[in-house]
Amino acid sequence: MTITRTPYLIAIALLCALAMTTTIAHAADSLPSWNDAAAKKSIVDFVAKVTKESGPDFVPPAERIATFDNDGTLWCEQPLFVQFYFTMDRVKALSPQHPEWKTKEPFASFLKGDLDGVLAGGLSGLLEGAMATHAGMTTEEFAKIVNDWITTAKHPKTGKLFTEMVYQPMLEVLAYLRANGFKTYIFSGGGIEFMRPWAERVYGIPPEQVIGSSIKTKFELRDGKAVLVRLPEMNFIDDKDGKPIAINQHIGRRPIAAFGNSTGDQPMLEYTQGGSGARFMLLIHHDDAEREYVYGAESKLAPFTDALMAKAQQNGWTVVSMKQDWKTIFPFKSK
Amino acid sequence: MTITRTPYLIAIALLCALAMTTTIAHAADSLPSWNDAAAKKSIVDFVAKVTKESGPDFVPPAERIATFDNDGTLWCEQPLFVQFYFTMDRVKALSPQHPEWKTKEPFASFLKGDLDGVLAGGLSGLLEGAMATHAGMTTEEFAKIVNDWITTAKHPKTGKLFTEMVYQPMLEVLAYLRANGFKTYIFSGGGIEFMRPWAERVYGIPPEQVIGSSIKTKFELRDGKAVLVRLPEMNFIDDKDGKPIAINQHIGRRPIAAFGNSTGDQPMLEYTQGGSGARFMLLIHHDDAEREYVYGAESKLAPFTDALMAKAQQNGWTVVSMKQDWKTIFPFKSK
Repeated sequence: MTITRTPYLIAIALLCALAMTTTIAHAADSLPSWNDAAAKKSIVDFVAKVTKESGPDFVPPAERIATFDNDGTLWCEQPLFVQFYFTMDRVKALSPQHPEWKTKEPFASFLKGDLDGVLAGGLSGLLEGAMATHAGMTTEEFAKIVNDWITTAKHPKTGKLFTEMVYQPMLEVLAYLRANGFKTYIFSGGGIEFMRPWAERVYGIPPEQVIGSSIKTKFELRDGKAVLVRLPEMNFIDDKDGKPIAINQHIGRRPIAAFGNSTGDQPMLEYTQGGSGARFMLLIHHDDAEREYVYGAESKLAPFTDALMAKAQQNGWTVVSMKQDWKTIFPFKSK
Repeated sequence: MTITRTPYLIAIALLCALAMTTTIAHAADSLPSWNDAAAKKSIVDFVAKVTKESGPDFVPPAERIATFDNDGTLWCEQPLFVQFYFTMDRVKALSPQHPEWKTKEPFASFLKGDLDGVLAGGLSGLLEGAMATHAGMTTEEFAKIVNDWITTAKHPKTGKLFTEMVYQPMLEVLAYLRANGFKTYIFSGGGIEFMRPWAERVYGIPPEQVIGSSIKTKFELRDGKAVLVRLPEMNFIDDKDGKPIAINQHIGRRPIAAFGNSTGDQPMLEYTQGGSGARFMLLIHHDDAEREYVYGAESKLAPFTDALMAKAQQNGWTVVSMKQDWKTIFPFKSK
């Protein structure tokens, strides 16, 4: 070791020490928004088990993969998926170039702000609206449109930014897992390029770990510059069976932990459980009418059926009651 | 700081210091198999530029993405892609269950070991052989088949394991980039699940950073266990325009450096160059008949055309002459 190198080494060593002290301090309670009940304990016990080097359930850091659904798992999906509101605003913005939309569904309903009308035909209304408004530009132009929208768009009931309508207890789970060497991924039925522009800022999850449904793109040289142009054609729907298929395609390993809230997430949880060694599966049950929403089997978009509840109990999956398990729902001060 | 924590902190600090010393030691010459000429200098200059924090070309670590073609860029693709030999051996292994293959192309040629015969109809012969032999099992069963094969399969000319037929100078580039905070990815026309089982061991690239062509998979519960079954149907061809499309899908950011060796890689290099800030594009020219192979515009599988060379010169891409630029080609002792 030379003399000139020493101060740098000491600085590095101190930084390392500081980082470690911080981790230890947090370990006291990494999940402060969770009530001290079974759900919280199941998370903490699992993390302790897979990170204990001398233990029988130890998992090396590279294999500590945790996958999360987005809508209803990390942020609020009621009264409708956020992407509905984005699509509505895009339809409105583009309507001057499409006079025919005034009388053509699902566009007429979008223009009237009648999202229940759009949903009347199921998700196809949303898909048709998305095809007509999420395509025709480069991927970089689309990212800018999303970014501009998400920084100002607000929830219709609370008036909070959609990016504030995220679940504080789940932000704590994301941070807690990462502090314990996990790599956190999103696998959502929502659009991959609708989530990537803001997921790192809001969830701390970088673009390459955000996967969702996608439309096709086309490679082009425009004025000598290579771009990808978004086409009005579905590429992949990252929901139900699509989730484990996308997990294999994007990660190439089974997750050891998976978090969801509806039947759309069931195959992802089953796939996670299907690997060997310790596994953790969690479902969030929306049962808090006062602080969020109550919905279950009857939900059109994200049903939590009796069969799913039975499956969870039979397989030892953790079921979170938002009402019982969460001290706080959102990061802002709520009633 | 408590007394019990101190020894641990000192150990961490020492480990950090050791890691740093190692990095500094390597920096002396991280590319020892490269001759001191323009190609090597272009790599080192680029890395110095984007990692200099106070410099105008600094790139934060999260955006230091480098993408590599595999066949002909990281390992030898002559006389044929390695996956041809794998497919041939799979056809041979499965032929007892397929008596009709003896007289049916491309299988008859595979069984005779006549790979030029397979190639007579272009890549479709390889694809047909792959569909018939790479599907019908779970993804985990297929990974085991690949692993078993790759640990013993040898190059027909040198008698070396295929995994030894990797380019030592490129292994050094991979390690050098990673030591400088880059994330290294493979984007190959070859099968994604053909590369993932061994890419980490051979190249230090984990499965989630290995992307290739893929077939479709189907989610199933088998005896209550969730699996993905491989289907005999193409999902995506990760070649030519497919490379930038897959890069956007899997990473969601433009690479700042890209490495290839044929027209199949041109769109990936163009896409890399199309971003703002410092960029690095490199093509390997196979011009060393004595130590490897000579092939260019006439190559059926991986042409390096005059137009590609002109494009490289016009755009300031680095062109590596294997003969002039590389002291050593393979990690083993060669003539």
